[in-house]
Amino acid sequence: MNNKLKEKALNFHKINQGKIALKTKVSVDKPENLVLAYTPGVAEPCLEIRKDEEKIYEYTSKGNWVAIVTNGTAVLGLGDIGPAASLPVMEGKAALFKEFAGVDAFPICLNTKDVDEFVNTVKLLETSFGGINLEDIKAPECMEIEEKLKKVCSIPVFHDDQHGTAIVAVAALINSLKVVGKSFDNVKVVINGSGAAGIAIAKLLLELKVSDIILCDSQGILYQGRAKGMNKYKEEMTRITNKDNIEGSLMDALIGADVFIGVSVANCLTSDMIKSMNKDPVIMALANPVPEVSPDVAKKAGARVVCTGRSDYPNQVNNVLAFPGVFKGAFDVRASEINEEMKIAAAYAIAELIGEEELNEEYVIPDVFDSRVAERVASAVSQAAIKTGVAKK
Amino acid sequence: MNNKLKEKALNFHKINQGKIALKTKVSVDKPENLVLAYTPGVAEPCLEIRKDEEKIYEYTSKGNWVAIVTNGTAVLGLGDIGPAASLPVMEGKAALFKEFAGVDAFPICLNTKDVDEFVNTVKLLETSFGGINLEDIKAPECMEIEEKLKKVCSIPVFHDDQHGTAIVAVAALINSLKVVGKSFDNVKVVINGSGAAGIAIAKLLLELKVSDIILCDSQGILYQGRAKGMNKYKEEMTRITNKDNIEGSLMDALIGADVFIGVSVANCLTSDMIKSMNKDPVIMALANPVPEVSPDVAKKAGARVVCTGRSDYPNQVNNVLAFPGVFKGAFDVRASEINEEMKIAAAYAIAELIGEEELNEEYVIPDVFDSRVAERVASAVSQAAIKTGVAKK
Repeated sequence: MNNKLKEKALNFHKINQGKIALKTKVSVDKPENLVLAYTPGVAEPCLEIRKDEEKIYEYTSKGNWVAIVTNGTAVLGLGDIGPAASLPVMEGKAALFKEFAGVDAFPICLNTKDVDEFVNTVKLLETSFGGINLEDIKAPECMEIEEKLKKVCSIPVFHDDQHGTAIVAVAALINSLKVVGKSFDNVKVVINGSGAAGIAIAKLLLELKVSDIILCDSQGILYQGRAKGMNKYKEEMTRITNKDNIEGSLMDALIGADVFIGVSVANCLTSDMIKSMNKDPVIMALANPVPEVSPDVAKKAGARVVCTGRSDYPNQVNNVLAFPGVFKGAFDVRASEINEEMKIAAAYAIAELIGEEELNEEYVIPDVFDSRVAERVASAVSQAAIKTGVAKK
Repeated sequence: MNNKLKEKALNFHKINQGKIALKTKVSVDKPENLVLAYTPGVAEPCLEIRKDEEKIYEYTSKGNWVAIVTNGTAVLGLGDIGPAASLPVMEGKAALFKEFAGVDAFPICLNTKDVDEFVNTVKLLETSFGGINLEDIKAPECMEIEEKLKKVCSIPVFHDDQHGTAIVAVAALINSLKVVGKSFDNVKVVINGSGAAGIAIAKLLLELKVSDIILCDSQGILYQGRAKGMNKYKEEMTRITNKDNIEGSLMDALIGADVFIGVSVANCLTSDMIKSMNKDPVIMALANPVPEVSPDVAKKAGARVVCTGRSDYPNQVNNVLAFPGVFKGAFDVRASEINEEMKIAAAYAIAELIGEEELNEEYVIPDVFDSRVAERVASAVSQAAIKTGVAKK
């Protein structure tokens, strides 16, 4: 980042002392309202909720509040910077929730790296929230936390680094495959990066009947029997991906592949690797801020479609296309969870915003500021929630 | 409450789905702002905070957010209704913080009655907040929670039911004593109610050199050696109040007293008791919604000044006169705690808003909607924080 941008970013945060504040939905500045909003009138909604806990969604704001919960162990490209230093990111996320979908969000930065302590804390405070958005937590702990929270919480739990990324990547892939004339059931996909995002993308692709998926990490292909650098989540993936159980490096994996999805590190994908892929390869180089391969290099090596996480290239894969609408959709029908069908519905809603006639190699995913996105995603997610029987309203 | 008011209160809460929402202080609706508020620009404040944790007050909203934390065990006059049913009250409190002093507040309703679990949870999430306002927690647990949190937290911890009530009661008493021509060092004060509020009032009066205080509870006078219905907080009070260590009932305590302060139950103070008090008695009957004695009865029995917690009588002792300004004052100078001097400064700031010429039996405490209050309290609290060396800014 250049110094001018650094300076601007710091001032932007300083000028209003951060990015988020409270807004009252009702006025308490005159006696007749005070007796309704506070004593004695407030006793009435309290008693109604006491009788029927579901009424909390009618009489309070709970149902529109997301807790953005982190412990700051894997923040952006910055790594483990701790809960305090992560707060600007969480406030930014809260601002995006609000401005893109009207969802109220509050940052909860927890000072613990202990999985059970994290889970117990979130469980204890879920009353105030309609949903939990986990954010920027180190893998594999983030997956364990999500798994445990889903079991104990009665509100939707969503880990954006996993599922938000997966939804938008899949949306881009739906359209990319249209451009190159291939379909999910006949492509070979290589995912480089087997942390939270890589595994979530693989799982969503499996739901979409992609049968040929190979996951890699910094030590190469994930296969059954690999000894080094494994964890229970990677183990699980070796049982449901890599159908021929091949071993080797990323280079080996990519031979004949149709799609590369990188959620890994800068510049790990070479021209030669791209050249070894099948005809018309799709390259999704999502590492931030420096992608796995620069779009120019990828194009020169034969890539038909290139997506990155950056706003200064075409086809930006940005989570903000998903999470605001996903939560709005879940909240609109008071969904008890955000399931695979809802995520797939979100991905198709994003992809289908681009009509056949406008779809091209440089436009496979809507712009971040396309104002139709959140509403369309929300509507698709609500419908999928209803269809799968998890809508409580 | 009549049915019409009940209906109105329920609608008031339903119409906007509760009372609080998020507000963004900056706009993220265009690319040049998104790169500052979120990636990549947001990394800059993160890194600054990583280097110097104090910078969190510059680059985030932390310093203006209060957590309103409860477990719903002693809500208004409703008792232990649990965390869910308490949310409307906490949202109301948040609205008051915002509208009266511009302080942002968020309700955290914790689902635990265990003191240590409560304390640990708040400790783990303190990063997101500039201060902790404890609310509607059963005594004596609330005192234990406050005591422990003050030890482990690096931000101010304030229990409104104790200290907010004490500040406003003392403010009213300062002016009441002026009206009757008595002073703190020569009055006998009887406090009925030895829970959180009663004890906090007694402690603040001790700071103000009131040497003759007797605390009572439902079983009568607190004295050294009493066996029944005691706890460690009441025990402590027997050592610093009731200087002659008398035993007996509320009736016994009141003989010759100058001031009655009730934070107890409806209709426990009789005409005869008031008649047994010293000349020109001051009666503060703060039980809600039905006071310890009705103002008419008290006046007829000889009371010179009568205060209640109700808005439909003169002299309403209402916490909203204190807590918004107290937190604003603490936040303005980034106070590390809210100490006794700051509370006393708040009480005098409230009392001194009423000039000698306007002060009278029916006007010893400013109106809840007196727009000067929060600012004056904040300023006095800030100054006291600076004077006592707890201001970090």
